[in-house]
Amino acid sequence: MEKHNEVAAGNGLLDRRTLLRGGLFTAGVAGAGLNIAKAADSIGADAPEWMRTPGRTFSAYGMPSKWQEKVQRVLTPQPGRPGTGSSRTPIHLLEGTITPSGLHFERHHNGVPEIDPSRHELVIHGMVRRPLAFSIDALMRYPMETHIRFVECPGNSGGLAQAQPQQATAAGLNGLLSCSEWTGVRLATLLDEAGIANGAKWVVAEGADAAAMSRSVPIEKCMDDAVIALYQNGEAVRPEQGFPMRLLLPGFEGNMNVKWLHRLKVVDAPVNARDETSHYTELMPGGKARQYMFLQAVKSVIVRPSLGMTMKGPGFYEVSGLAWSGAGRISKVEVSADGGRTWALAALTDPVLPKALTRFRLPWQWDGRSSVLMSRATDDTGDVQPTRSEWLAQYAPGQFYHFNGIQSWSVEADGTVKHVYA
Amino acid sequence: MEKHNEVAAGNGLLDRRTLLRGGLFTAGVAGAGLNIAKAADSIGADAPEWMRTPGRTFSAYGMPSKWQEKVQRVLTPQPGRPGTGSSRTPIHLLEGTITPSGLHFERHHNGVPEIDPSRHELVIHGMVRRPLAFSIDALMRYPMETHIRFVECPGNSGGLAQAQPQQATAAGLNGLLSCSEWTGVRLATLLDEAGIANGAKWVVAEGADAAAMSRSVPIEKCMDDAVIALYQNGEAVRPEQGFPMRLLLPGFEGNMNVKWLHRLKVVDAPVNARDETSHYTELMPGGKARQYMFLQAVKSVIVRPSLGMTMKGPGFYEVSGLAWSGAGRISKVEVSADGGRTWALAALTDPVLPKALTRFRLPWQWDGRSSVLMSRATDDTGDVQPTRSEWLAQYAPGQFYHFNGIQSWSVEADGTVKHVYA
Repeated sequence: MEKHNEVAAGNGLLDRRTLLRGGLFTAGVAGAGLNIAKAADSIGADAPEWMRTPGRTFSAYGMPSKWQEKVQRVLTPQPGRPGTGSSRTPIHLLEGTITPSGLHFERHHNGVPEIDPSRHELVIHGMVRRPLAFSIDALMRYPMETHIRFVECPGNSGGLAQAQPQQATAAGLNGLLSCSEWTGVRLATLLDEAGIANGAKWVVAEGADAAAMSRSVPIEKCMDDAVIALYQNGEAVRPEQGFPMRLLLPGFEGNMNVKWLHRLKVVDAPVNARDETSHYTELMPGGKARQYMFLQAVKSVIVRPSLGMTMKGPGFYEVSGLAWSGAGRISKVEVSADGGRTWALAALTDPVLPKALTRFRLPWQWDGRSSVLMSRATDDTGDVQPTRSEWLAQYAPGQFYHFNGIQSWSVEADGTVKHVYA
Repeated sequence: MEKHNEVAAGNGLLDRRTLLRGGLFTAGVAGAGLNIAKAADSIGADAPEWMRTPGRTFSAYGMPSKWQEKVQRVLTPQPGRPGTGSSRTPIHLLEGTITPSGLHFERHHNGVPEIDPSRHELVIHGMVRRPLAFSIDALMRYPMETHIRFVECPGNSGGLAQAQPQQATAAGLNGLLSCSEWTGVRLATLLDEAGIANGAKWVVAEGADAAAMSRSVPIEKCMDDAVIALYQNGEAVRPEQGFPMRLLLPGFEGNMNVKWLHRLKVVDAPVNARDETSHYTELMPGGKARQYMFLQAVKSVIVRPSLGMTMKGPGFYEVSGLAWSGAGRISKVEVSADGGRTWALAALTDPVLPKALTRFRLPWQWDGRSSVLMSRATDDTGDVQPTRSEWLAQYAPGQFYHFNGIQSWSVEADGTVKHVYA
């Protein structure tokens, strides 16, 4: 078996093909308590209690183990506004690329409505030849599509714009980010049926929540890959993600993926809704705010190791993280263990899908000294993550939406992990 | 926009590219109640109550909508044996390809153990140069892999071997089938580290449940794509699927994917465990049972329409179903609406992954007359589903494991759906 244990970049980063095999990993198991004899006679008298008594019976809908109780959405309640704000996906405690639906991040503007699907319709009106209304049953007869796509709040990672590095977990900094398998009806099919009138340029999407949250979407996006999503990870879209249906605009800012969708009005100009004027705009150096910048640009974050974890001494570790781009597929992720001086190519987990989270991994032989880990993603349009200072230089002070700069963790000699600007 | 509404096979099956666009679908919306004026003034006095009062607040771990209560695992309790038996994934109520973890099918032999992960170890012993034990923490330092793979009980669809067609749902017939994104450590990495001794041919995998369920696995499979799975759809493997770890043997019968895995003994011959002798063998015409047939062969099932659903009059429908093969990728799925006389190619949802569920879809213009729908999958090894009679002819009467014959639904003129042998 060919080995690829060559050093790929400074400070212990190894060739990504080391993932295949290697006696190298022996270091990892040295600390484990060996109890071979006991395990080999595991149904004897000293077997654990769960092998000596019958287990639980079947359940209609399963839940995580009670030992996983800490794996929760990270809530940041706002006093007096119970239904407004956000909760974050604990990305540092997850693996793979699919976000469990119960842990999908939330961003609500007046709480989660409990919509009776039998009384819910999607209306398409405005500049159309024939206004239409669709019940769930009607939509269920249409051709469907299935796509794995991320949704990210444009405010995600905004904390990186602060002057000092927040000592928060990867989830605290970047957890307004989730990835699901979405299934639904292509919006273009429904708009074709309604018949778009000449001069129509935008579609205003409105949710049936108590904020009637609405956003203006360019008609080109609506006719491209927009989907009326009815299913999320196999089952009906969850209430917090828009039950019974949401607008899915792959790669566009999360807020535009209107939840509890009940109305699409075809118009000739954007409506300047609250969430596209008071929020989610980009404050430029001249003092003007740039509006209608929809794309969630190329980005990455290392989640293991990350703040809150403690390294258990020098030796072999796998660096694991997430990369994504609203513009397309991730083409490469580079990792540095020396604060950006040298970089090694990470392995990308197949299938690498457009506008979806991509898991990257790289083996690291940590020598036990203080080291700064960074990741830098490139997408298939050639776009590369800027450094934090390059990103900041584009905007006026205080701008924090759409942050996609390179992030850094410092692994300290004592094994703890700090958030640093490097 | 090019249209592809051509008839692709008898009795109304249309070209799969019809999925792209088409005024054809107009028929689908005709029955929907139109209430454009009301929706367009949706935040007025007659807005639904969920737009007039603030919604629910944030939650740490989300659940499906209360209106989805029927979407449950299908339980078949056995009196007096609360922890033995199975529950099924409601595949007829789901869409896409990922099974929500809470709805993954269950097959337990003495209940679901509640294992304290801090007290659980994976031991590798037997014909190895160096026996090893791995705590969860130790495994967490190893290189990981992520794969979307199905798991199917070898008894799935066994009801099709009965003389008369069972009037059961697609889940009742085929719901011992689920598909997840699994993440974990490649077993070959750990076996390499332990060092397999000369003459070793099998690995006996044992679970830490109260049945100590065990199976013999060929060493070739262990060194190929076997994974010690720690994560399922992003979070820790659920208790019903083996928390804190299970053996994942992509494409092999579900029972061998040992849950609650705590022991791997490397040996020179299979152990003839209860579940590889009293179950999951194939009774041949000569009266002998064929053992150690592990592969879940190429298979498909239409889930929409299927038994339990009622067609709402003639017109456009999408036929939607699942195809899979333990041998590799699905290369094509053909659908018939005339009981197998003519066949049309279905569209396969990207990405088509090996040993994973693949969603297929085909537009159907139903003329309202009694019609028999069938699906026939082919995998990339060239294997094709046999007819039910071809499948039965291979075995002795009573054999029902590993059924993968073509299945048929009859859509009756009144819109109901029956299970038929055709």
